[in-house]
Amino acid sequence: MSGKNILIAHGGGPTAVINCSLQGAVETARALGAGGRIYAARFGAEGILAGDLIDLTNVPADTIARLADTPASAIGSCRRKLTDADYPTVLQTLERFDVGCFFYNGGNDSMDTCHKVSQLAKQEGLDLRVIGIPKTMDNDLVLTDHCPGFGSAARYAAISASELALDASALPIHVVVMELMGRNAGWVTAASALAARLTNCPVLTYLPELPVDEDKMLADIESVWAKGKGLLVTVSEGLRDSAGKPLADTGIVDGFGHTIPGGTAQHVTDAIIQKLGIKSRAEKPGLLGRASIPYVSQVDRTEAYDAGSAAVYAALSGRSGSMVSIQADREPVYASRMELAPLADVANAEKKFPLEWVEDGCRIADAFFDYALPLMGGDLPQYAILR
Amino acid sequence: MSGKNILIAHGGGPTAVINCSLQGAVETARALGAGGRIYAARFGAEGILAGDLIDLTNVPADTIARLADTPASAIGSCRRKLTDADYPTVLQTLERFDVGCFFYNGGNDSMDTCHKVSQLAKQEGLDLRVIGIPKTMDNDLVLTDHCPGFGSAARYAAISASELALDASALPIHVVVMELMGRNAGWVTAASALAARLTNCPVLTYLPELPVDEDKMLADIESVWAKGKGLLVTVSEGLRDSAGKPLADTGIVDGFGHTIPGGTAQHVTDAIIQKLGIKSRAEKPGLLGRASIPYVSQVDRTEAYDAGSAAVYAALSGRSGSMVSIQADREPVYASRMELAPLADVANAEKKFPLEWVEDGCRIADAFFDYALPLMGGDLPQYAILR
Repeated sequence: MSGKNILIAHGGGPTAVINCSLQGAVETARALGAGGRIYAARFGAEGILAGDLIDLTNVPADTIARLADTPASAIGSCRRKLTDADYPTVLQTLERFDVGCFFYNGGNDSMDTCHKVSQLAKQEGLDLRVIGIPKTMDNDLVLTDHCPGFGSAARYAAISASELALDASALPIHVVVMELMGRNAGWVTAASALAARLTNCPVLTYLPELPVDEDKMLADIESVWAKGKGLLVTVSEGLRDSAGKPLADTGIVDGFGHTIPGGTAQHVTDAIIQKLGIKSRAEKPGLLGRASIPYVSQVDRTEAYDAGSAAVYAALSGRSGSMVSIQADREPVYASRMELAPLADVANAEKKFPLEWVEDGCRIADAFFDYALPLMGGDLPQYAILR
Repeated sequence: MSGKNILIAHGGGPTAVINCSLQGAVETARALGAGGRIYAARFGAEGILAGDLIDLTNVPADTIARLADTPASAIGSCRRKLTDADYPTVLQTLERFDVGCFFYNGGNDSMDTCHKVSQLAKQEGLDLRVIGIPKTMDNDLVLTDHCPGFGSAARYAAISASELALDASALPIHVVVMELMGRNAGWVTAASALAARLTNCPVLTYLPELPVDEDKMLADIESVWAKGKGLLVTVSEGLRDSAGKPLADTGIVDGFGHTIPGGTAQHVTDAIIQKLGIKSRAEKPGLLGRASIPYVSQVDRTEAYDAGSAAVYAALSGRSGSMVSIQADREPVYASRMELAPLADVANAEKKFPLEWVEDGCRIADAFFDYALPLMGGDLPQYAILR
């Protein structure tokens, strides 16, 4: 393996800014005159296993620049988790396409893959540099202040929840329940609680990390609704009861034997209607929470670009076996820089939402916003509320 | 009634730009030196009946300017439909607050209210000028090319559907089904079909005006999904079968005896999973479709402002009994102007979506986009799709 070409792959669910990391990697490789070809795997691991690569070497600069405003993955992704039996095929593809620098852009599973490829290459004495580029709206990677993709998802959650809160309090005929992504991680759902600060509508927020006592939840909802100012309830799709059972138990199993995800907001709405006799409606923007470009955080966009760029710098300067990690200072003003963390320490670890940032089970503490607000891009809306 | 003051009220569901009409009315009244006080009804008809008005006369100009970026209703709205018994109370409030110009900003029901107030005032010889300001994301008012609020809802539907389509085709592991507002009117849902033009993902679109044959719908979904490019299905919340029965029959009745609205996307998703054995997920941005500021159409924003402004001009120049109506030319370039239409002809009439703009029950014809694209604000995204 002489290793003069570059290969980039996406893994897992896209974010609003994963293409910015691709843009950063491609533009940096071009600027550094990396020399070889720039490949991308078509649909992530599937493309690597099938030897199905896209040659980006001669894609026009203005097309690459448009990646900044393109959500989802421009090269395709997949949810296939590689098994031990797959790795020889991965190395074959890398060899066949003369890949010297391999970049995998994803979350926990992808960093595990990255780590294994890096170890295998080292064992076999290959001249292959492997760098992970972090990406997940869930914000649950360790050894990084936060993950590219989170700031935009948090901005989406915060501002769209504020817009729903304004509607809910301007025409207070129903409790509005909003469902947010993050099956196990409450980072994005917590951001929706900003609506209580940006509007005059009460907001109750429920995270997947805290078991929900449905009777207390309904009592809280009834009590706040009675004040007559409208009410927005924001819930994670992954809410569970104290026995660990998902709140939204639709009882429907898909063709693959998995219970249908989501439906938590509708479940809460049904309970409000049936048990409290209060009108309610459930909203679930779902994948829009990770795909909406008009709500992108400029800080997140820049950092996602820089993460892709830093990965290429690191590999071309001889580094391998690391993930790009974001280090951030919040005082006196927010500033971040790209560093490297060992893939071995990142793979399969999970950063939990600090439960001390939740008050009374349904309100998010200032400490969370001290952490998250700079990541959302700074310029938050200022609404005119005259009533 | 000496009639020197102004009263503005909102009726029905808000839009992303109804506050722009309020801004236009207030700023125009100030610019014309209308003299008297500028009142707004707190929570629409409820505020008028209770004599609960907000005095906007001295609200700072920068607060009024911020209305342009504030969704929902800054003064509050309600869904109370006035009965004959209510009108004497309405006239009492108008007299008590010395109102000479009354502006009601809403859809069909509000224009009916406007018409009745106008007629009653004339019968009783009052010096009261009544002008309706059109507003509805549903776009179903007659005698106007389109309604303020529709362009932004259409832009939201088109771009957010495109973002979902990009996600659905970048990670094609499930059919994504998106539900859009408009119980009886398909105008907004039709706009979501633009996703088929802005992305490379197939899109099937179902409007409430066309009875759905669920077997054909599932056969269409199965056939398009089999092509392997992902699939977005966009459905109106109000889809009905050939017997006129709502597709989403949850069987749950709320405390007021009404069947729960919505749930159509989840119904279609369940059918895809259970009958086709294909993974699927349902998304329902719901009220965000009428409340999202980052997706606002600049054309819609400007026209909503102009509609409020034109209403004040018309009343101060002696006109009454009319609704502001938008006349538009699309050749050689889009241009619109504000005119007046008789309230008598607008009240309780409904503009239907032309069924000849739907092809094969699930595709939207070019003619719709010739009509709707200029209203969405012009600058549509250009995505980079490399796979």
